Amino acid sequence: MKIGIVGLGLIGGCLGLDLRQLGYQVYGVARRSHTCQAALAAGAVDQASSDLGLLQATDVVFVCTPMAAILPTIEQLAKHLAAETVITDVGSVKGAIVHEATQLWPRFVGAHPMSGKAEAGFQAAQRDLFVGNPYVITPVATSDAQAVALVDELARSVRSQLFYCSPEDHDRAVAWISHLPVMVSASLIQACLKEPDAAVAQLAQNLASSGFRDTSRVGGGNPELGVMMAQFNRQALLQTLEHYRHQIEHLTHLIEAQDWANLEKVLLENQTHRPDFLVE
Amino acid sequence: MKIGIVGLGLIGGCLGLDLRQLGYQVYGVARRSHTCQAALAAGAVDQASSDLGLLQATDVVFVCTPMAAILPTIEQLAKHLAAETVITDVGSVKGAIVHEATQLWPRFVGAHPMSGKAEAGFQAAQRDLFVGNPYVITPVATSDAQAVALVDELARSVRSQLFYCSPEDHDRAVAWISHLPVMVSASLIQACLKEPDAAVAQLAQNLASSGFRDTSRVGGGNPELGVMMAQFNRQALLQTLEHYRHQIEHLTHLIEAQDWANLEKVLLENQTHRPDFLVE
Repeated sequence: MKIGIVGLGLIGGCLGLDLRQLGYQVYGVARRSHTCQAALAAGAVDQASSDLGLLQATDVVFVCTPMAAILPTIEQLAKHLAAETVITDVGSVKGAIVHEATQLWPRFVGAHPMSGKAEAGFQAAQRDLFVGNPYVITPVATSDAQAVALVDELARSVRSQLFYCSPEDHDRAVAWISHLPVMVSASLIQACLKEPDAAVAQLAQNLASSGFRDTSRVGGGNPELGVMMAQFNRQALLQTLEHYRHQIEHLTHLIEAQDWANLEKVLLENQTHRPDFLVE
Repeated sequence: MKIGIVGLGLIGGCLGLDLRQLGYQVYGVARRSHTCQAALAAGAVDQASSDLGLLQATDVVFVCTPMAAILPTIEQLAKHLAAETVITDVGSVKGAIVHEATQLWPRFVGAHPMSGKAEAGFQAAQRDLFVGNPYVITPVATSDAQAVALVDELARSVRSQLFYCSPEDHDRAVAWISHLPVMVSASLIQACLKEPDAAVAQLAQNLASSGFRDTSRVGGGNPELGVMMAQFNRQALLQTLEHYRHQIEHLTHLIEAQDWANLEKVLLENQTHRPDFLVE
């Protein structure tokens, strides 16, 4: 099987390393020639080019570009690929992609491998990034069953854990556990930066330790990624923010009312149920 | 110098281990006799008892009980100690303690060693817990200068990093970086638990990874500790919650208005300034 990858960043690079290791022929397309050279040198691709024409004989193409480039890339690919080629993507929001992409290319399969690391770009690529991590496939009513089966097979081959759901359920779930935490954490940093008393602000900086570090981590991350989440998953994110604001107001109310019994009940429920989200 | 410690939990136990190692004579008081025996066996104390009378000949006493027991313990200690004995505490909120404690005992010095670990109790005690971590001393106008100097000397001897501020500034600073993060993080877990669609709720649990894990950590911790923070630092915590709610509303507004330029500005400011809180 001949596999194409468009976009040789972290995810595209990792897919290339793993799939080539498994014996597939991998063709990579990157905008910059030095990325092509790096991918060739690292053994992530058999051939690389900045021209999508390189992919014309492939059986399946992974679109691993930033979110905003996924649909334009599929439009371009359509000019080069044979009709039976499967296209899949790795975008972190699915509703904004899948329906339109399936109209552009009937053998399109939306997916989201949920693996990552702090560093971005091909230089951070490594083998086995996907092992044990979720790979969500989001078919729609018109999805081609054979195309879905092919993406399923490749996702299993890199030893991901597979999940199936609608694009909309995917987007609501990742709003809760990925996009909302970014906004919650970002608001914490913003609030701390607004302390008007310079002595208290300095003291807060001096005394901050692991609790602040962990709670503020994702809110102090890559700004472009944060904006991208909000842009492409706007509706689902706004819904979770609305629920979240109610919870902040509820806790505030309990503290104002000195209702310590109910505050303890809430915190106990958290302590009991948080582990449900952390099962490996 | 003879040192007393009331409460042989994590902090009291660690103080005993370090101070005894430095050559001081350490007398420990714990409610339970098996804690006394454990402290003796571990070499954290020279003598141990459940009777405060053990401390009558000490030069300084560290009150290392839970917050709610600090003032009652000082009242009890006052019946046993010589007037020149210094009393200090390790409570994580200072306004609710320092003024009243100084009235009960003129040679009282409020302080807060900001060291900890996930486990609690004497069994988690270890040497060198305080090394490099903040030890905040919060004198008031009437504090005895010699008493403050003695606490300073002992805090330095366990190789803490010393900070001085008023009890009120301490409480506002820890509200920002310790108590507010607990409520922010607790509200995130609560909100996620409120998703009405069972399939989406299950998917969110399956897909949660490091972003959710870190942002939810302190909100899923010890409920008693969370209630204690809110109870004893209520006013300062409510002020930070008010600021925080405004930030959540501001980010929500930017997303509603699709104002991506200003959302990126906020996230960029966070990325730039978060490291100010993480200087070792």
